[in-house]
Amino acid sequence: MATNRSFVHGPDVDTVAGNGLLHRRLFLIAGTAVAASVASTALHDPAAAEALPVEPWMKLPGSGFVGYGQPSKYEEKVARTWNTAPGTTGAGAARTPHHLLNGMITPNGVHFERSHSGIPDINPDTHRLVIHGLVKRPLIFTLEALARYPMESRIAFIECGGNGQLLYQKEPAPVGVQAIHGLVSCAEWTGVKLSVLLQEAGVDPKATWILAEGADAAGMSRSVPLAKAMDDALIALYQNGERVRPSNGYPMRLLLPGYEGNMNVKWLRRIKLTEGPTMTKDETSKYTITLHDGKSLQFVLPQEGKSVITQPSPGLTMNGAGLYEISGLAWSGYGKITNVEVSADGGKSWAKAALQSPVLSKALTRFRIPWRWNGGPALLQSRATDETSYVQPTREKMIAARGNRAIYHSNAITTWGVSDKGEVKHVYA
Amino acid sequence: MATNRSFVHGPDVDTVAGNGLLHRRLFLIAGTAVAASVASTALHDPAAAEALPVEPWMKLPGSGFVGYGQPSKYEEKVARTWNTAPGTTGAGAARTPHHLLNGMITPNGVHFERSHSGIPDINPDTHRLVIHGLVKRPLIFTLEALARYPMESRIAFIECGGNGQLLYQKEPAPVGVQAIHGLVSCAEWTGVKLSVLLQEAGVDPKATWILAEGADAAGMSRSVPLAKAMDDALIALYQNGERVRPSNGYPMRLLLPGYEGNMNVKWLRRIKLTEGPTMTKDETSKYTITLHDGKSLQFVLPQEGKSVITQPSPGLTMNGAGLYEISGLAWSGYGKITNVEVSADGGKSWAKAALQSPVLSKALTRFRIPWRWNGGPALLQSRATDETSYVQPTREKMIAARGNRAIYHSNAITTWGVSDKGEVKHVYA
Repeated sequence: MATNRSFVHGPDVDTVAGNGLLHRRLFLIAGTAVAASVASTALHDPAAAEALPVEPWMKLPGSGFVGYGQPSKYEEKVARTWNTAPGTTGAGAARTPHHLLNGMITPNGVHFERSHSGIPDINPDTHRLVIHGLVKRPLIFTLEALARYPMESRIAFIECGGNGQLLYQKEPAPVGVQAIHGLVSCAEWTGVKLSVLLQEAGVDPKATWILAEGADAAGMSRSVPLAKAMDDALIALYQNGERVRPSNGYPMRLLLPGYEGNMNVKWLRRIKLTEGPTMTKDETSKYTITLHDGKSLQFVLPQEGKSVITQPSPGLTMNGAGLYEISGLAWSGYGKITNVEVSADGGKSWAKAALQSPVLSKALTRFRIPWRWNGGPALLQSRATDETSYVQPTREKMIAARGNRAIYHSNAITTWGVSDKGEVKHVYA
Repeated sequence: MATNRSFVHGPDVDTVAGNGLLHRRLFLIAGTAVAASVASTALHDPAAAEALPVEPWMKLPGSGFVGYGQPSKYEEKVARTWNTAPGTTGAGAARTPHHLLNGMITPNGVHFERSHSGIPDINPDTHRLVIHGLVKRPLIFTLEALARYPMESRIAFIECGGNGQLLYQKEPAPVGVQAIHGLVSCAEWTGVKLSVLLQEAGVDPKATWILAEGADAAGMSRSVPLAKAMDDALIALYQNGERVRPSNGYPMRLLLPGYEGNMNVKWLRRIKLTEGPTMTKDETSKYTITLHDGKSLQFVLPQEGKSVITQPSPGLTMNGAGLYEISGLAWSGYGKITNVEVSADGGKSWAKAALQSPVLSKALTRFRIPWRWNGGPALLQSRATDETSYVQPTREKMIAARGNRAIYHSNAITTWGVSDKGEVKHVYA
């Protein structure tokens, strides 16, 4: 095992896989000498250190307080980008700029958004949630009534079923992580367990599915197995501490941890208990996986294990040979991520990345590994394994299983090619 | 132990402490009957449930996409409130509205802010971090250089040393959780371990403290024991995924998990290794705890174990007898919270609250317990215990130890009085 190698003897013994990948624990257990030998991006200049200039912003009082703050004006590029269907302004998808973020929480301002007919302007005082259908007692909830119920918080990713679909294309799209994988985000969601509300309504034994319907103009609606509704489903009222954002379902959305994004119905107004799936437009004409032979897989519900390197990635130019951190995100709708491996030679050799704790079930997991770039070409890849022992497939394997007609549930390994000029591009390898 | 009581027999066996406190696991293990018997805020009306109106926002397309999103216009009250020193706009403190939030993450827009001379308008391209003093090699870091180092993320609270100081006053201030305890917030911070940079600089054996200095006009500076700097200190570059907000130190701040807020120096420009503490203005004339006899405690560094109920709390009127969730936040600068107890009768009896997982060291921990309010007067309190077995003191005990001249490190139990009209007020009990 490469990960058992010591790096206290010799110049390159901290290398654990091809093309410069270093041991993931390098900086936790290394002594001064090793750390100093690899970390060389600081300027060592005693005179300059003692003559640090007093910058203009130190010479006058700064700005005052505001009720609700915003990012620095220097961070305007940290924004979602979006596509819309022809003739619409609100039917489309806006993507999270993961190459400019770090950690596992996605700030609310750039959480991805997939909307089918724009963001409804919902008055929270008149909005209602109804639970009806195969129940003993149909119930109507105001937001105020829901706020009195016991709450639960969980940090969970939501991923659009169409995220990563560019990897089904025959040629590599000349874009980066935001365009390819920007339809996944992660937040702390807080709300009421759907099971508590269903228990109060009294579930008819004949019910085996629910229908969840949104209050947007598209009437987005999806069928969900009752077992999931009774397991870990939440009626989410809060997103990263504050009320759910309008683009994410204000004043409430369904949260189905790990399940395909659009099943986490936004602007939730109605849950109907049913004998079987309702076969809505959003689960028949869309959100099915069409295979080689023209047949389609329907109700592929959890998002499969997946990962992607966010730094370096296209748009972030490497500035000279030396030490870099390779960092990225891994997730699985089936539970916890147990392992992420990184390759710098297009999959010939792999090294184990460090996983940032806490590693949470059905949440984004940040992985990191130090890399000593030699200034030459490199092919960077990451490969996730989840707690069911599922291993993220190569693109070849995914295409072999599903063909090129599919667009949903793309979870193949993504490759970033690094040139000897430090440019990073999306490639197939 | 009240917490061992079963609640499957009889009408009130789910009561675990005086004045209506219910078992924390009620909704996790209760069957339909129990859940339905306590949860009565929903409207049961079959005809209305089937005739749910089509609201105006379902009849036309919603709004389109934006790069950086904002909260709903209906949530304008979710904002910081602030005080400033006379004649200034930027010397003061802005407080987090915890009564309107839920979960453990504080959204960046309302993270608390304590500034001594406003928010400097720092250009990240020209900002530098210097490490000098008792080191072998003084180093200068650009933001770009730091971005190549290995990163670490941790969810941590920061609490101003002056938070809760109103509890030292002789009469209860007629305000709520935002005014009393709004100078604590919690975020996922990501950055470079300070120990890695200090190892590269090479620490002189004579160094036992560091001086950390900010680039604001106040030149905020604090001394920190070297042991803390080498332990879990971070140079934080990201806050909840995106770059640290200007009000929280853009482009970088020191994060000293668990330590007094202003030691987490914002707009960090300089770290100097020293033989002893520098005795800056910010650790001599301020941020010391003056006792009965006029002597002061200096360098009281970690924030002690503490908790406060956020819902219900002043400003949130109770709407009729019945089931409510009591929810709040607990934290300790010494590690993990191990227990939070809640009283509804002013401390005569206590019940164990549920702690929301993951419970993280030196992070806010959300606690919750169901409460069946009988419509009569109640005195709500919470009491935290941390992993060092430290128990949050009563106000009487804190005053006895420190007198009324102190203003810092107030961590006493807070009491909310509920009237028979459902009004909630800050009281001493």
